[in-house]
Amino acid sequence: MKRFDSYLEMINRRLTALLPVCTYDAPDVCDAMRYSLDGGGKRIRPVLLLESCRLCGGDWEGALGFACALEMIHTYSLVHDDLPCMDDDDMRRGKPACHIVFGEATAVLAGDALLTQAFAAAANSEAAKKTPARALEAIALLSKCAGAEGMIGGQVVDLQSEGKTIALSRLQTMDSLKTGALMRAACEIGAVLAGADNEKRAALVRYAEALGQAFQIVDDILDVTSDEKTLGKPIGSDAELQKSTYVSLLGLDRAKAAAKDCTAAAIDALNVFGADAAFLRSLAENLMTRTS
Amino acid sequence: MKRFDSYLEMINRRLTALLPVCTYDAPDVCDAMRYSLDGGGKRIRPVLLLESCRLCGGDWEGALGFACALEMIHTYSLVHDDLPCMDDDDMRRGKPACHIVFGEATAVLAGDALLTQAFAAAANSEAAKKTPARALEAIALLSKCAGAEGMIGGQVVDLQSEGKTIALSRLQTMDSLKTGALMRAACEIGAVLAGADNEKRAALVRYAEALGQAFQIVDDILDVTSDEKTLGKPIGSDAELQKSTYVSLLGLDRAKAAAKDCTAAAIDALNVFGADAAFLRSLAENLMTRTS
Repeated sequence: MKRFDSYLEMINRRLTALLPVCTYDAPDVCDAMRYSLDGGGKRIRPVLLLESCRLCGGDWEGALGFACALEMIHTYSLVHDDLPCMDDDDMRRGKPACHIVFGEATAVLAGDALLTQAFAAAANSEAAKKTPARALEAIALLSKCAGAEGMIGGQVVDLQSEGKTIALSRLQTMDSLKTGALMRAACEIGAVLAGADNEKRAALVRYAEALGQAFQIVDDILDVTSDEKTLGKPIGSDAELQKSTYVSLLGLDRAKAAAKDCTAAAIDALNVFGADAAFLRSLAENLMTRTS
Repeated sequence: MKRFDSYLEMINRRLTALLPVCTYDAPDVCDAMRYSLDGGGKRIRPVLLLESCRLCGGDWEGALGFACALEMIHTYSLVHDDLPCMDDDDMRRGKPACHIVFGEATAVLAGDALLTQAFAAAANSEAAKKTPARALEAIALLSKCAGAEGMIGGQVVDLQSEGKTIALSRLQTMDSLKTGALMRAACEIGAVLAGADNEKRAALVRYAEALGQAFQIVDDILDVTSDEKTLGKPIGSDAELQKSTYVSLLGLDRAKAAAKDCTAAAIDALNVFGADAAFLRSLAENLMTRTS
């Protein structure tokens, strides 16, 4: 998708510009932040934010700082999730995890610094200068979706569920927090910064929630059906940690059908935008058929 | 000090109200956040923020969300600093450290959640509603002072200095980042939210920087001269980690003289405010003569 690539280039350029300048002679943490941000992420969340803003008639270029903030938060969460005391993963996106390259202490601090820097990126964005009240609403939303009531809450449920068989409803709660909350933040912040009406904002939230669920189901499927080289991390890690997944609870065929249903629901939520939502529709379809 | 107690009560009440509501059945992280915030902190940073705002003629009650944000950030930094992969401290303020009570994974997440929640507290503050542009400037400042160019940078230098004798200038750099940055944030954010002129803002920054340095020197002195019960943590921990301190580099007498000089410099910086700065003057003197 041409528009995806154009978003991607702008996001990557701005992310580089937004990294802090460490003036003391201890570059480790800045290097670790850069290493983790450069790790070949799909940049789905910042793209969702920019496109949601554009779709609601907003100044999406002015929202670039918020898009980068979201990617920094997503990246910090991966750095901390991979720590020995958490999921203890050595590989991430085909490269050694941050704590393997820089050590555990630096990985904790690099994650902390990415999370902190995210809010600077948001507060210093053009959107913050032009529409300060909307920017403050968006910062509050960002914090809520990333915090104990959102993404971090999902990680807590995840850690508590290791080695246990959990009910499907609990798996859905966990994923809606762990993966869904930042997807939702992406689309809702885009709408908020654009000053969208409630109908459009609610439609984007519905889209994001269904998309987030589909995304997590496909993740679970790929952990079983992919290979290490394509996926960039060892496959079968869910089974090894005895984690309940959509595949372990539903079986592969029903998990695939559920991913399809969620993708359809996401696409369906976009009706209010008519033909202009073609990009978000394609994105949902592409995420369902992805291989990594 | 009567005003200190009145600030303290408001800060503690608001901190409790600002903690997130964890709706899923995994209360650990919220409990760990509460445990760490309740840990008997002196609340110096939020008090500095409120008083700086009042001194510059601002609506200090409207700044309460920012004051709590600062205390959450300070608290998260202690939780992460105590982790086994960092300073590996088992005790904090006379109580078992967060990771001892809740485990390492929950301590990482509770720290992350406190840092995240801090920005929600700032973005949802009354100051943000009434003066959004100032609030955004204050959020950017908060992020800069807490991040890789500020407090986190100081922790990096600290970790790299363990077991080494470092020069006094490097110790000063480290402390001005690790302790000074948040003190500075407190006073400068108070000024920014009040819409203070440059002279007053610069005076408060000078005060905060000198106060932060005095504070750290006294910390180093107490680690040698206090006892475990009064201090709330084992004494001699700096020597055990072979950390360079003001005492190890200057000797006890010269360290005491340096603390006195810094306190005098802090008080001197307040001249522009005249008699109205009595509270901040007393605070500087009390911090110099503290025993814990």
